[in-house]
Formats: sequence, structure tokens, C-alpha cells
Amino acid sequence: MTNLRVAVLGVGAMGAYHVEGLTRRTRGVDVTVINDFSAARAEQISATVPGSRVVTDPFEAIRASDVDAVVIATPGMAHEEQVLACLERGVPVLCEKPLTTAIDSAYGIVEREAALGRQLIQVGFMRRFDAEYAALRQLIVTGGLGNPLMVHCTHRNPDVPDGFNSEMMIRDSVVHEVDVARFLLDEEITSVQVVKGLATSRAPAGTSDPMLVIFETESGRIVTDEIFVRTGVAYEVRTEVVGESGSATIGLDQNLVVKTTDGRWGGQITPGFVQRFGAAYDIELQRWVDAAARGTVDGPGAWDGYAAVAVCEAGAEAVRTGEKVKVQMEARP
Amino acid sequence: MTNLRVAVLGVGAMGAYHVEGLTRRTRGVDVTVINDFSAARAEQISATVPGSRVVTDPFEAIRASDVDAVVIATPGMAHEEQVLACLERGVPVLCEKPLTTAIDSAYGIVEREAALGRQLIQVGFMRRFDAEYAALRQLIVTGGLGNPLMVHCTHRNPDVPDGFNSEMMIRDSVVHEVDVARFLLDEEITSVQVVKGLATSRAPAGTSDPMLVIFETESGRIVTDEIFVRTGVAYEVRTEVVGESGSATIGLDQNLVVKTTDGRWGGQITPGFVQRFGAAYDIELQRWVDAAARGTVDGPGAWDGYAAVAVCEAGAEAVRTGEKVKVQMEARP
Amino acid sequence: MTNLRVAVLGVGAMGAYHVEGLTRRTRGVDVTVINDFSAARAEQISATVPGSRVVTDPFEAIRASDVDAVVIATPGMAHEEQVLACLERGVPVLCEKPLTTAIDSAYGIVEREAALGRQLIQVGFMRRFDAEYAALRQLIVTGGLGNPLMVHCTHRNPDVPDGFNSEMMIRDSVVHEVDVARFLLDEEITSVQVVKGLATSRAPAGTSDPMLVIFETESGRIVTDEIFVRTGVAYEVRTEVVGESGSATIGLDQNLVVKTTDGRWGGQITPGFVQRFGAAYDIELQRWVDAAARGTVDGPGAWDGYAAVAVCEAGAEAVRTGEKVKVQMEARP
Amino acid sequence: MTNLRVAVLGVGAMGAYHVEGLTRRTRGVDVTVINDFSAARAEQISATVPGSRVVTDPFEAIRASDVDAVVIATPGMAHEEQVLACLERGVPVLCEKPLTTAIDSAYGIVEREAALGRQLIQVGFMRRFDAEYAALRQLIVTGGLGNPLMVHCTHRNPDVPDGFNSEMMIRDSVVHEVDVARFLLDEEITSVQVVKGLATSRAPAGTSDPMLVIFETESGRIVTDEIFVRTGVAYEVRTEVVGESGSATIGLDQNLVVKTTDGRWGGQITPGFVQRFGAAYDIELQRWVDAAARGTVDGPGAWDGYAAVAVCEAGAEAVRTGEKVKVQMEARP
Repeated sequence: MTNLRVAVLGVGAMGAYHVEGLTRRTRGVDVTVINDFSAARAEQISATVPGSRVVTDPFEAIRASDVDAVVIATPGMAHEEQVLACLERGVPVLCEKPLTTAIDSAYGIVEREAALGRQLIQVGFMRRFDAEYAALRQLIVTGGLGNPLMVHCTHRNPDVPDGFNSEMMIRDSVVHEVDVARFLLDEEITSVQVVKGLATSRAPAGTSDPMLVIFETESGRIVTDEIFVRTGVAYEVRTEVVGESGSATIGLDQNLVVKTTDGRWGGQITPGFVQRFGAAYDIELQRWVDAAARGTVDGPGAWDGYAAVAVCEAGAEAVRTGEKVKVQMEARP
Repeated sequence: MTNLRVAVLGVGAMGAYHVEGLTRRTRGVDVTVINDFSAARAEQISATVPGSRVVTDPFEAIRASDVDAVVIATPGMAHEEQVLACLERGVPVLCEKPLTTAIDSAYGIVEREAALGRQLIQVGFMRRFDAEYAALRQLIVTGGLGNPLMVHCTHRNPDVPDGFNSEMMIRDSVVHEVDVARFLLDEEITSVQVVKGLATSRAPAGTSDPMLVIFETESGRIVTDEIFVRTGVAYEVRTEVVGESGSATIGLDQNLVVKTTDGRWGGQITPGFVQRFGAAYDIELQRWVDAAARGTVDGPGAWDGYAAVAVCEAGAEAVRTGEKVKVQMEARP
Repeated sequence: MTNLRVAVLGVGAMGAYHVEGLTRRTRGVDVTVINDFSAARAEQISATVPGSRVVTDPFEAIRASDVDAVVIATPGMAHEEQVLACLERGVPVLCEKPLTTAIDSAYGIVEREAALGRQLIQVGFMRRFDAEYAALRQLIVTGGLGNPLMVHCTHRNPDVPDGFNSEMMIRDSVVHEVDVARFLLDEEITSVQVVKGLATSRAPAGTSDPMLVIFETESGRIVTDEIFVRTGVAYEVRTEVVGESGSATIGLDQNLVVKTTDGRWGGQITPGFVQRFGAAYDIELQRWVDAAARGTVDGPGAWDGYAAVAVCEAGAEAVRTGEKVKVQMEARP
Repeated sequence: MTNLRVAVLGVGAMGAYHVEGLTRRTRGVDVTVINDFSAARAEQISATVPGSRVVTDPFEAIRASDVDAVVIATPGMAHEEQVLACLERGVPVLCEKPLTTAIDSAYGIVEREAALGRQLIQVGFMRRFDAEYAALRQLIVTGGLGNPLMVHCTHRNPDVPDGFNSEMMIRDSVVHEVDVARFLLDEEITSVQVVKGLATSRAPAGTSDPMLVIFETESGRIVTDEIFVRTGVAYEVRTEVVGESGSATIGLDQNLVVKTTDGRWGGQITPGFVQRFGAAYDIELQRWVDAAARGTVDGPGAWDGYAAVAVCEAGAEAVRTGEKVKVQMEARP
């Protein structure tokens, strides 16, 4: 058995995290090629990975003879061309969200992959690999809650950069709940409404933080998402599903309960996404590597990436208009 | 010290519960007069209260010489005239919600009481006397959460009669969250939106159960309320306040945790409102009796009753139209 | 219906708390006589209770014509004579723990009451009236846990006076778990062992704080109690029952859950016994008053008081010897 | 980088689980040799591992030229000779507990390794790699609880084979808490007492299940362990540390909270050790593989294995005698 040889495109925070996961905690894979917009950054990361080399042109990296599969962690606007190049060469690709930055290009990718007749694209919605989300879905699928009627999500970050505005809150944060809702309910989202209330004083002028996002699905289910990215608290990701015969909640963060001399009981909230979803990333990578070695994927695909782009597009418009906005989606090929 | 002599008007389930509370668990009060639309029912309850007598005309009961204060637990449409009669005679009154069934009549009562120059009317929003709600308000008032930005409420009943339709879900159930929001945030609600999703198969045709209700307040805060009255589960009343420097949740029901041979841990959810709010009712009654003995009230007043009527009126329209409806309120006298 | 007229003997912290409960939150009772070793203290409390008077001799108070029942909250060494005087006059008495300070005198009281042929003595083990303990017992009695095999108790105080030594930890604190174990398991405790470990630096020299206390019962069940009275934290009283078909825990203190900008979630631990057991005291008093009006008691009786004295006597010896000490008890009359 | 080549001795349930972990979820390792008392079993497992071969003599497996390190998962009585053979050849070894089945042989191994001058032996106490235990230790080490005074452990299994008697409960189950206590408190256990109470009707005659085990440590700390291996419930492993300035609890199992139409809230208790400690096993293996590639270990060593044998020896005697038994340990070389 030879190891899968992987090129990682983009080694900013997320790409570097993937490099570390692939080289320290994933079996059956070698990172052979590293690429970044900044050659210096690529060299810096490559120096930590014995056997890897830097390739400065991402398309050359994709086509390299010592590359069997590709991880794309570049900025979103670079994704379309890079994913298409992977399809062209026929190599499995794990593409971080968003699949692309526009509905049309995302759908174009869906069509191209469909024309190939086999799945090569996996999109980095890692929550599907989290034990709690998987258990929640299992509970739904096995009928433990009856027909799911409502889903309530909470997505809170301790802080984000100042430039992170309301639209980015949809495209970068709420996008995870878009995929969670689709994953849990097995159907498409048909409309988005955004309710903007009183903003925290931490938010820059013009940014509505927190917001309440309301999705409706094909069958008429309601999904709410409180998105609040400057709580000053910690990383809180919670989901409650309310069904006809019960409800279930994940994300309660109650692993270590402490009582202290200030008369309080409680625990640490997970500080960030690595602590909350680190194990999910590891599972995502291992399952993708195992599948890529067989020339396929094992996780959310191009269609899931496209659907997320389409819902976020509607969400961004809902932020601007304050109205309920219909999601525009093409038929699935 | 002589006991406060009280007439109870209406001894259906709620009125009978008040009679029991007043005669078994409240100090300084005697129920001397019992009235009900059904004389037989009044006799039945009076027979359990030594020293009480039945008066068949509610207005005669209000004016009786052995009555110092009145509890009104009759159907809502009877409230206006009965409360006005109490004001006329100048006796303290504890009126179950709704204060009246229409905005105009509710405001009329507010004006009449204002003209009297002293508070005689208390409205039966008993959650204000619940230890958890009181602690949550205290936490907000003392700045423990910073500026409150969003409030998320969950209001679930195991079951209701078939005739309990969407509008009644607003007027009879959501009305409690109306008061909770006003109590916690100390400001008025300015608009109501109702999002109707997929209904449980337990709901009769034409009834949207569950619904998502969204309030906005004067300062722009958002309050959400999931109202679901046919869960088949139990009585779940939960409130989470999300502030600038923290969040807090009550209603988690975790007093007795059991692990069983089916491999589960957990506990009983409170089966009904008596188990959940019984202590709050007792405190409400004791504080009202103590205040009434001094000729005043100690709890939510006529204005709170009026505001709830106004918001529920808008809520009922929001159910019908699916639009965001502005709450119409007169100035506070 | 005339109110029950009660004399309260001893109005230190506990007695004054009972006076407040009897005069503000209990129905059907008037405190007519107040007695204390300190006449000044008695006058001070009496001044807050309209209609009450001070009687300086406790035995005169017990015999007063305007006294139907007696609450004893004097120091333990005064209990024997005062309880006997109540028996002699045939008035119901609520006696704070300990029933008496020695096994023989406690048993003497049991015999005297038995000779009377009716129950007049209730002992102030208020936990039996706490909703959580009552639910736990109910769960056991109805077979929800199968045969109970072990009970684990935790009893923690934030602080106590310096003079509160290891033996007082048994007699004043562990005594509550003695009654809890007997209440939950419906059998007698037959031996006590005390394991003394590393003491907190807050403990004065010679005082073992915390200690692990181990009871065995007639049927061979094991009850453990961690007693730690200088935690610096808060008032934590927790009980877990481990049965053949499940286990159950109370005392988890999770009513208001807060997340804060220090990245923590959690809540306040109950600061003291009033917050934890205030409602239980109110129920205890109301039920005792209702029963006393019928000339009887409604709660733990003289035998329960005697059993607690006997177990604590063995516990005190176990502290001194470090050995497992057999509990010496007479037959129940 | 070439992969570490590992021989696995003993492929019963635990050994087979290690083979699966090493070949599917661990990076940098190949299982090249598989050995078992049953050649058929060895062949069966080897068939699932491409590139592996069966060696029927364990000592030949240890000396094989395609073996860089060894995992020992054979029955305990085989450990001594196999570990010594590994030391002789100078290969890193991960030995499942117990290190050996007798104090003297365990100490002999400690001495032999000490004479070598480098660490080659790691013992399979996987809880040290569990995120919750690691966080709890971190909390203690960083002073978050002040000086730890007591530790309370709960170790419950749903069921075990009939032959699993009281002594095996010490040697196979309580042994984990022995290591947990040493890991958390960083000191040796000096005595053991076992309190046997009422046994579950599920226990065979002569087996005390549950038991209460009490350790004392060098500095006088008390550690309690309720060991109950036939609860019929699930796999519950809980630890509470009580310190001078706070307490902390792990093992609360609250990841997915469900409310159901039977009016209950709660969740699934972890059914078995794989679900509870699967991630810890993975981390243990990855860290051991990474260390073994450098010729060393990264986890509990021979001394920890020896100490556990010594304490369990005393524990087994405590079961027989009912007395507090002193732990006999040699000086650490």
C-alpha cells in the first residue's frame, strides 16, 4: 500500500491546519506539494513537512505527477478555476467552503462533475463528521423524534475582525447552519429571512450583530439561526431539533464541571472551532483520504456546495432588503 | 389582625386552584364569598371552604359587606365589567389574564384606575413570582449580562383541546411570553410577526402548531418564541437571554437526574403548569393578600394587562396575515 | 376556624427564622408567646409579631393558656426537659434537632410519648419536605431504581466558625444525612466509620475537614457521606442513590445557567441553607401547624430523633477511634 | 520516512481493537507481524491487514527483523516473559495492563528497564489520553482547585461474565482508578480498604458487587471508588476531585440531550468502553507510535505498571480480609 500523495493549495490558517492534520494525525497520506499565493508562506509550511516541495503555480501543483489528490484552502474567489482543473485531471479534491463565490459558477461545477459520471469533489462541511451532529442525524433518521418540525441553531463566536460585516456573517458563519439544516432534514432550503435587532456595541457601525436568520424548507419546516459573532464569550454552536414526538439538543459543552470559591458551578465553553470541531476535521480528513485512494469522495459533495452558495446568496439579499427572499436553485443534474 | 376577606369570581379549574391556594397555603386571608356562572359548581367549591357562602350575582359578590378584595377567574369576556365594579367600590382585585378581551376596554380600565389615583388592579402573570424568572431579571438588572440583545423563549404543552386554534395559542399561551419579555426587558413590544411552518400531525386542520413568534421592542431588541402546544411530551417553559456580555437560560428542569437500565440518563420534564409554577402562584397570592390588606397591589398592574392585550391583538392579526404587524398602544396615563 | 396559638422557645437564628415563617408564610397560626434565654432578644423578636408577648420562663410558656402548640429552637441541652413538659401538658411540639443530647434521654422521651398513646413530637428534619428529597424517595418507593444498594451523600458548607470541630461536624451536619439515609432506605443504621484524610488548610489544628463517613444499614446497604464544612464555595447538598436497576441524583443546582465573557458557562451554587431549603421549611411548618390543629404531627417523630442521636453518638466515637463503631439502639416501643 | 513496523501479540478483543486502530486510524505505522495463542485467530486477523504475516511463537515475533516495536495484548500471565524479551532486544513495547501478575515480577521489570538506562515500556492506561481526564489533571496542576483533598470515582459496567468475582473487580476494573488517582494526584497510594455492602441480585453468590474501595495516599488524601460491574445500565466512569478551593467532575455524558413523549429529558449513557474511550485509545496509539519511532515511550511507564500491581495486590487482600491493607512497594530505582 502506497500513501496517497496530496497537494495542499493555500496554507493560511485553515490550509496549514489541514497540512498538520494530514501529516500528523491521518493515515495513508503524504503531503507532497504545497502551494500558496505567498511563496514565503509556502516554504515556511513545507519546511515542517519532510518530503514535501513547494510549487508556486496552483495549476502546476494540481497537474504534478506526484499528486494523487488535492486540498483547496485558498480564498473563495480562486476555488472555481482550481476545482475545475482538478476535475479536468480527474483527481479527487477536498474544497473548503465556499465551493465558489457565485451561484452560476457553483452550478457550472456541479454540471461538469455530473458530466464526468463520478464524484470527485468533497466540500469541507466538517460538522457532518462531528460525533454530536452525526448522533443527532441518526436520532432523526431512526425516527427518535418523529417528523422534525423546527430546528433552532445558535452560532456564537467570541470575536471576529472589524471588517467582518453582516453579509460575511451569512456567507462565512451561517453557511455552516445551511449545511447542518440540509444534512439533518434531507431537503432543500427554499427561502431566507433575516431579522436585524439591536446590535452589540462591539459591532462596527452598519453591521447587525447579532441577527436572527429564518430558513424555510421544501416541506415547510422552519429553521432559526441566531448568529452572533462578537459575544466576547467563546465558541458556542448549538442545535435543537423539535420533532413530532420529541426534541433533542447538541452543543451543551458539559464535559468538565467545576465548582469554585466564587460560589459558582460550571465549565469552560469551547474557546474556538479547533477545540469544538478538531476531532471532526480529523475524521473528515481520514475518510476523505481513504475515499480518495479509491478515486472517490466520502462526504458532502458538489451539490451540497452549490446549495450552500445558493442559500447564502439569498441570505445576503435578505440582509440587504429585510424581506423574505426565495432561494433560486437549478434542478439537480 | 383580622384576615382579608376575599370573594372569588369563577371557580373553574383556575379559580378553584386559587381557592385552594388561598385557603390552604396563604396566610391572613379567608375566602368568604364564592361565585360562579354555575351555582352548582359554586356550591361544590364552597362546601370545601368552611365559613364561605355562595353569591350567585358576581356584582353582588363584589359589593358584599364581608368582602375586602376580589379574585377574578371568570371567562375573559366577563372581566371588563367585573374589574370596573371593583374599581367603583375601591376594592383590590387580582384579575386573571386577559385583563379584558379588547384593546379599547383594557385601556378604559387603565384610565379609570389612573383617575382613582391608586393601584387596585393586579393581573395574574404569575411567572414574575417564579424564582427562576426573578433571578433572571435580577441578573439582567444588575448588569450580569450587559445590555440584553435577544431573548429566546420556548413554550411547549403536552396537549390542548382540539378547538385550541392558532389565535388562541397567541392569546392564551404566547401572552405569557409577552409579559415575560416586558418584565425582563422593561420596555414595550412594538411589533409581532408569526412564522407558520410544518404543523404536527396532532394539530387539527387549519391550526399551525408549532409557530415561531417574533417580537421587536422599542429599543430594537428581538424576542423569539417557539409556541408548540401539542408536543406530546410535557410542560416545557424555557427562556434564554442573550446580552452583550453573556447569556443565561432558565427552565432546564434538571432537579432529579436518573440513570436507568435502558441505558439512559435524564429526568422527568415538569408535567404541567401546577408543577412548574405552583410555588409562583403561592407567592403571587401571598404577596397580593399582604398588599390588598394595605389597600394596594404588589405585582403586574392594569398597564401590564393592557399591554399584553395590545400585543396579542397584533399577534392574532399576524397569525392571519403572515405579515409583521405593528402594535397599537395608547400613551400611558 | 381559630388559628393555632404557638409558643416559640429560643429565638436565635433558627428560632427567629421559624417565627418569621409562622407569621408571614404559614396559614392558620399565630405566634402568641415568645421565649428566649435572653429576655432582650425575646422582646426584640416579639416586637415584630403583633399580638405576641414575651414569657421569660420556658415552662411557663409551655403551660400558658394561650398556647396550643410549641416550637423548640433552644440549645440542644435544654430540649429534654422542654419536650417532656410539652408531653406532660399534651401539646404538639416541633423540636429542632437534636431531640436531646444523649441516647438515654432521647430514648426516655420515646418511651414517654409511647406511653401517652399518641404522637405529639415532630423533629425538625426539614429535608423530608424538600421537593427533591421527596421525589427521590418516591422514585425508590415506587421501584424506579430497584433495590437501593448504595447511597452517596455530599454535604458541603462554605464556612463555619473556628470552634466547629470534627465531632460537631457529625452531630450538627452529618446528622442530616443520618435522617436522609433512614428516610430514603426505611431502615436503621447499624454502624459508622469515619475516614479522616488530608485536611483543608482552612481547618483549625485537630479538626479533620473534610471527612468521609460510612454508614451500614440493617440490610447491609452502604451509605457514604463526604462532609466538608469549609469549602469556601457554597452550600452543596447532593445525594445519589444507586439501585439494582438504576441510579438517581438530586442537588445539582442547575436552575439558572449563565455564560459569561470569561468563557465560562454555569450558575450560582446555592449560597446557604435558607436558599436551598427555605421552601422545605415553609412546607414543614404548614404541615405541622395543620397537624397540630388536629392534635398530632405530620413528619419525622420522636423515634427518628432518637435514632439520629444514637447514630451521631456512634459517629462521634468513630471520629475519636478511627474504627467502625456499632450503633447501640433500644427496641422501638 | 518509513513506517514503524509493529508486532501485535495477542489478538483477542483488545488486541484486535489495537490492530484496527494501528491500521486504520494511526499514522506512521504498519502492523507486520501478528501472533496469538490460537494460530487460527491470528490468521483471521492477519487476513484483514495487508502486508502482515502470522508468527506463531511470540518470542520469535519479538525478535523478527521486520519488527521495530511490540504491542502486548496477551493474557496477563504471559506479560512478564514477553516484556523482558522486548527489553532484551531493546524494542519499545506497549503492554496492556497488568504489567505482570505479581509484585515481584513487576518490580523485576522496573529494575531491568532502569538498568538499561532508557524507557522502553509503556503500559496501556489509556484514560490518561482521554480529553476529560487530561483537562481535569491540567486543572489540578495549574492550581484551579487548590490542594486536592479527596477524589471520588464511580466505575460502573452494564454487565460482566458470571465468573468475574470480587478480586477480578479490583484487578481488572479498579486498576483503572488506581492509575487515575496516581495520575491526578502525582503520588503513591499507601493503603486500600474495601467495604462490601448489599450485593445486587445479578451478582453470583460470593461476589460483592457493588463494593466501595477506599485508597489513602502518601500525603493522606482519600480516594473513594464505587465499583459496580453489573448495573444493567451502561458504562459510567465518573471522577470528582474535591480541592481546597473548588471541585470538578468529569464523565457526565451530556452530549446529546433528548426530550421524549414519555415526558422525560435526558440522553444515552455511553454503552461501553470503546464509545467512552475510543478517542483516548487512538491518541494513545498515535503518541506511542510517534515515540517508538524515536526509540522511546510517551505515556505511563513500567513504574506506573508496577505501582498498579502493588495496589491491586493490597486491594485483593482487602477484599478477602475486610481490613485496611498497607500497600507494599519497593523504592523507585
